[in-house]
Amino acid sequence: MSAEFNELAYALDTFYFLISGALVMWMAAGFTMLESGLVRSKNTTEILTKNVSLYAIACIMYMLIGYNIMYGGGISSVIPSIGGILGASDNVPADIAAGSDAYYSNISDFFFQVVFVATAMSIVSGAVAERMKLWTFLLFTVIVTGLVYPIQGFWSWGGGFLAEVGYSDYAGSGIVHMFGAAAALAAVMVLGPRKGKFGPNGEVKPIPGANMPLATLGVFILWFGWFGFNGGSELKLSDAGSANAVALVFANTNLAAAGGVVAALVTARLMFGKADLTMALNGGIAGLVSITAGPNVPSLLGATLIGVVGGVLVVFSIVGLDKLKLDDPVGAISAHGTAGIWGVLAVPLWNEGASFGPQIIGLVTIFVWTFGVSYILMTILKAVIGLRVSEEDEETGLDIVECGVEAYPEFSNPR
Amino acid sequence: MSAEFNELAYALDTFYFLISGALVMWMAAGFTMLESGLVRSKNTTEILTKNVSLYAIACIMYMLIGYNIMYGGGISSVIPSIGGILGASDNVPADIAAGSDAYYSNISDFFFQVVFVATAMSIVSGAVAERMKLWTFLLFTVIVTGLVYPIQGFWSWGGGFLAEVGYSDYAGSGIVHMFGAAAALAAVMVLGPRKGKFGPNGEVKPIPGANMPLATLGVFILWFGWFGFNGGSELKLSDAGSANAVALVFANTNLAAAGGVVAALVTARLMFGKADLTMALNGGIAGLVSITAGPNVPSLLGATLIGVVGGVLVVFSIVGLDKLKLDDPVGAISAHGTAGIWGVLAVPLWNEGASFGPQIIGLVTIFVWTFGVSYILMTILKAVIGLRVSEEDEETGLDIVECGVEAYPEFSNPR
Amino acid sequence: MSAEFNELAYALDTFYFLISGALVMWMAAGFTMLESGLVRSKNTTEILTKNVSLYAIACIMYMLIGYNIMYGGGISSVIPSIGGILGASDNVPADIAAGSDAYYSNISDFFFQVVFVATAMSIVSGAVAERMKLWTFLLFTVIVTGLVYPIQGFWSWGGGFLAEVGYSDYAGSGIVHMFGAAAALAAVMVLGPRKGKFGPNGEVKPIPGANMPLATLGVFILWFGWFGFNGGSELKLSDAGSANAVALVFANTNLAAAGGVVAALVTARLMFGKADLTMALNGGIAGLVSITAGPNVPSLLGATLIGVVGGVLVVFSIVGLDKLKLDDPVGAISAHGTAGIWGVLAVPLWNEGASFGPQIIGLVTIFVWTFGVSYILMTILKAVIGLRVSEEDEETGLDIVECGVEAYPEFSNPR
Repeated sequence: MSAEFNELAYALDTFYFLISGALVMWMAAGFTMLESGLVRSKNTTEILTKNVSLYAIACIMYMLIGYNIMYGGGISSVIPSIGGILGASDNVPADIAAGSDAYYSNISDFFFQVVFVATAMSIVSGAVAERMKLWTFLLFTVIVTGLVYPIQGFWSWGGGFLAEVGYSDYAGSGIVHMFGAAAALAAVMVLGPRKGKFGPNGEVKPIPGANMPLATLGVFILWFGWFGFNGGSELKLSDAGSANAVALVFANTNLAAAGGVVAALVTARLMFGKADLTMALNGGIAGLVSITAGPNVPSLLGATLIGVVGGVLVVFSIVGLDKLKLDDPVGAISAHGTAGIWGVLAVPLWNEGASFGPQIIGLVTIFVWTFGVSYILMTILKAVIGLRVSEEDEETGLDIVECGVEAYPEFSNPR
Repeated sequence: MSAEFNELAYALDTFYFLISGALVMWMAAGFTMLESGLVRSKNTTEILTKNVSLYAIACIMYMLIGYNIMYGGGISSVIPSIGGILGASDNVPADIAAGSDAYYSNISDFFFQVVFVATAMSIVSGAVAERMKLWTFLLFTVIVTGLVYPIQGFWSWGGGFLAEVGYSDYAGSGIVHMFGAAAALAAVMVLGPRKGKFGPNGEVKPIPGANMPLATLGVFILWFGWFGFNGGSELKLSDAGSANAVALVFANTNLAAAGGVVAALVTARLMFGKADLTMALNGGIAGLVSITAGPNVPSLLGATLIGVVGGVLVVFSIVGLDKLKLDDPVGAISAHGTAGIWGVLAVPLWNEGASFGPQIIGLVTIFVWTFGVSYILMTILKAVIGLRVSEEDEETGLDIVECGVEAYPEFSNPR
Repeated sequence: MSAEFNELAYALDTFYFLISGALVMWMAAGFTMLESGLVRSKNTTEILTKNVSLYAIACIMYMLIGYNIMYGGGISSVIPSIGGILGASDNVPADIAAGSDAYYSNISDFFFQVVFVATAMSIVSGAVAERMKLWTFLLFTVIVTGLVYPIQGFWSWGGGFLAEVGYSDYAGSGIVHMFGAAAALAAVMVLGPRKGKFGPNGEVKPIPGANMPLATLGVFILWFGWFGFNGGSELKLSDAGSANAVALVFANTNLAAAGGVVAALVTARLMFGKADLTMALNGGIAGLVSITAGPNVPSLLGATLIGVVGGVLVVFSIVGLDKLKLDDPVGAISAHGTAGIWGVLAVPLWNEGASFGPQIIGLVTIFVWTFGVSYILMTILKAVIGLRVSEEDEETGLDIVECGVEAYPEFSNPR
């Protein structure tokens, strides 16, 4: 093809990547709204501060070292590559014009990848809400986004051993979502439950979130942003086959979420007798997480069913975690972890190119690595600087203690 | 042109469709925020649940049967076509490369169309707020999105008789918005007003919404999403004429909304003496609805004027419906119905290709069909499973009764 | 190249412009949420009304006269050009096909530019919150968006004398953000502080905002929208060099915001001992403003550092303005003005094509013009129709006084 044509195709693929990345960045707002809606008003400013900060830290750490680890050859590349991406020159236009293999800007790839890290970390943020020290969490964020995530990301997306065994995870049901849930599970186990969540006789006490419209808004933001998350993960748009694939990914992502909402709504109705909004919302997220490992293959009906199963699972998982006395205030471990596992295992059901062995190897590897390292990290942080605020501070609320600012100074009237 | 060029153009048009569709999906969040801001806090969780559920149901029903009815040959196509879209293979890349007439992915078309259905249904959702049973509404949603909307959609966009008589409705002032308003009007008539809305002597009692920032956010979301709603409805982008048309649609959509805001603000100021936020917001929506039937023809000034008229009309319509004792808590019937009628009738004023006869035929047909079927459906539902919650439950609020969860458990302090 | 190719490239560049413009329009929602979160509940409906109205007015005024002034030859073009843009025909497709120099739709350019005006005006809106009369503000908006902004915009982006001296301001750290801050500063000086902000002995009394999640949402919206604001300002996408530039702009914009958040968070921690959410949020905005003058040149690390400096500066600036008894309820003057100045001055540090002389000339010119005209305008408005609500009305709150509607009628429980 002509030089101008090559450049135009490159521009379209780059633009597609950038818009997709911007949509994923927007998911950070989704997590923030979801989590701030599901906690009590006295811990709202803190979770807002935590979410905007973790997004910022994730971007900086991934720029400094994470991206090079994940796509530059693994952990061995850290030292030589600091500054690698920093000074990275992009593809040379003349090469593109001449028909080089590169079909999108390197920097657009960095931008797309960096927002994924923040997504993974946002999952942890909700699970440790209402009791973890802010600055300890941010330090944990520095390590997870700079090292823990990129190292396992390298194993599959960076061309490491999980890629070689055939682990198939299109946009990261396992690599991003189950990863986040595994880190969250470790954190929750070391941290312990919120005061008052579990009664002396083992009963589970609901702690209602302060602001349901925010939580709902958060899920709509995530749903919208997921079109970038999954839609961009085709990585290419500029030929008819790729364009069809991206279209199918959009439609399937939407239908899986829809299936998740309906399934969780109905399941919760059967179990609790009510139309439980938070279950419906978590069902939507579960549907999205479930389809993420392979949105490019199933039919529209198939995608819907994948979401339906995710939506049913998330209800049982949330109830089950409560029974295990694992306190996850926003349901993140269930929506991202349980549904993430299902998503990865569902891939071979539709995609002939995938099989269960590698999927299970991938899940176990990612889980063991992430849970193990996170557990050790949290244990060290607990010993060295402390994980939890004091009981008194927990009672007062983190907003006053950590941030000095109330989220709703004129409304709040805790019961 | 070359095969690669054909594929690249196809990719761009598909991408344009997908981004437009994602923006329309985002409008679901807009309706949700708008409606949840305009109801009382005791009915907020329910309306959130309703909106996220109706979106999900609309997507699934349209996938199962609606899309095939609307674009596969009308109601006769239902039975053979269940599974049609499901198993639909997209255009074959080799055909695209060879210069086939198809210029975008079929699945991207499905995705774009499916989010329109949800929009139509969201209009109904607000009008029946604060008194209708949740599960009855969801059942109504199943039927409307699966059958009622697609059948009339087929008449115009699917190539049916309204297309043949020359009914011109670019992105659906009538087909989507007036449709939703007609269904809402039928629902409101069968359902009756909220307790306490109209006094014994016929006086109208304002029932203020609980959360104005949410309502405002909702309108901004709708405004933003409308760039996809109208902008995507050109259906093609990849040549200079189409690109110019899309650009005009974006600019006109924005200016019509602006005109609607200013006109409603000033009209309300003259009538009530205050800067009425909810009128300004409904003015913006009315401006958007008004331009939707023909944003591709008027000048920028013309589009602004179309919006201005819509903004004036919506104020009078809201006041008028109150006088008729039709209780529409969010103003949906006025913003989508009255403005929708104006929008359809405005088309021939600018577009030489349209004339009043077909426009009126279209409006009457859509209204009679939609209002009639909805009225019958609501009447049947009323008889069989009941439409309204009990008076006591209405007093308590739907959140406790239907969902078991309060929207703002720490704030709410009803007067 | 072939005619079809030329048209396809034109379509891509036009689409890129339109999507960018839509994202900038979305920033209006960001300012609205940010400001409504940072004021007290009794002034919330008013600030919502103000923001939706100013956006609408800005679009209309810029269509009527502003665009022609700014891009049609300066103030002398006003009279002849009213109607110019109105009746503007777009580029002729046949010319595009034949290889004309125009590479995007004129109307798409108008759309992109019009949303910038609204951004500039939104900056003023927050600074005058909680005390300025609504209708006076809207009149001020008419003049600023129709004349004051476009005249100075012509000087640089329209090809006027600032362009000739070499003032370099990629997407408007000075032309848009410092402009807005200069107008805001003048307004705040003429208007005076809110009642109770400064004690009799000169002490500063914090007046907490009513809704921190809204403020946070606002910043996320701005962050997301800024990808359009900066990303679209490359003006071209369709060749490899341009695509690379756009990609760098996206990544740098994101990282500068991240740097701003972290820097402001740490600076505030060191100064006040707490994790101050509002400082972190303003740090993010400051980072975005700082990079806006030149996001297309620095490395990723360089952009982060530019944001870091912006984030530190904004904290000191907010504290400093308080000391000067200039009452800016949302920190707009600091986040857009102080950071805007830094952004303009930072350009020559990375961009060899820029130098300090022209940058300073540009800043001084824009500031003197904007501050001067705004100061005079506000003084005239004060004398003729009055700027401030009465003390009693300020105590009652603008929502009841100006709008007749409370923002949160069921929650508000002012302390």
